[in-house]
Amino acid sequence: MSDVENLVKKFQKELSAGTVSFLLLAQLAKAEEPLYGYQIAKQLESAGEGVLAGKQSALYPVLRNLDGAGLLQSEVEPSVAGPPRRYYRITDFGREVFSAWRATWQNTQSLVNTVLEGAPQ
Amino acid sequence: MSDVENLVKKFQKELSAGTVSFLLLAQLAKAEEPLYGYQIAKQLESAGEGVLAGKQSALYPVLRNLDGAGLLQSEVEPSVAGPPRRYYRITDFGREVFSAWRATWQNTQSLVNTVLEGAPQ
Repeated sequence: MSDVENLVKKFQKELSAGTVSFLLLAQLAKAEEPLYGYQIAKQLESAGEGVLAGKQSALYPVLRNLDGAGLLQSEVEPSVAGPPRRYYRITDFGREVFSAWRATWQNTQSLVNTVLEGAPQ
Repeated sequence: MSDVENLVKKFQKELSAGTVSFLLLAQLAKAEEPLYGYQIAKQLESAGEGVLAGKQSALYPVLRNLDGAGLLQSEVEPSVAGPPRRYYRITDFGREVFSAWRATWQNTQSLVNTVLEGAPQ
């Protein structure tokens, strides 16, 4: 792997570290019913066009952290085919945090895009 | 500090960890002459409207890392008033990484904004 590829991988990893919780929360803020991990992963994957490819397994510990911190709540339900599934829904506290994080994201996005203006391609 | 404020602070810190190197590189890709740390900090601060307030000192180790990794090169010049200053310029390798990081940033930005579409305010 070239030096540039390594540095791209590092940057992508840092950006993902900041955004994965936010993406999961956004997905659950939009959901009309509780979702289990695999459903959320598939929805994000279809939005991401490869950005999250092969990283679904990284989402599960983040879901558990958000659950543990009270931003989500979850319930295990039996499944007709296969092992029981843990269904997640966003809490009121999670909605409050999501709304504050969206403002944070928009400030950062706006700063980065302002600085990028005029930079050579 | 409330739970929401703590979580916003954490999210902002994670987003900054991912973006500070990128912002410094962008600033130096645009610069027509070598810049010293304080000049870069002031330019970013004026773009950031407070996002980076009080965090200038955090930029110096990142500049040194980029220099050490060959994305920047630097030279110490005497200053007429005060201690000598280290002036940074972007290298060809830095421009190559900047261009790749810009694509990475745009993919992540596009994923996040796609997922945000339709999320309740």
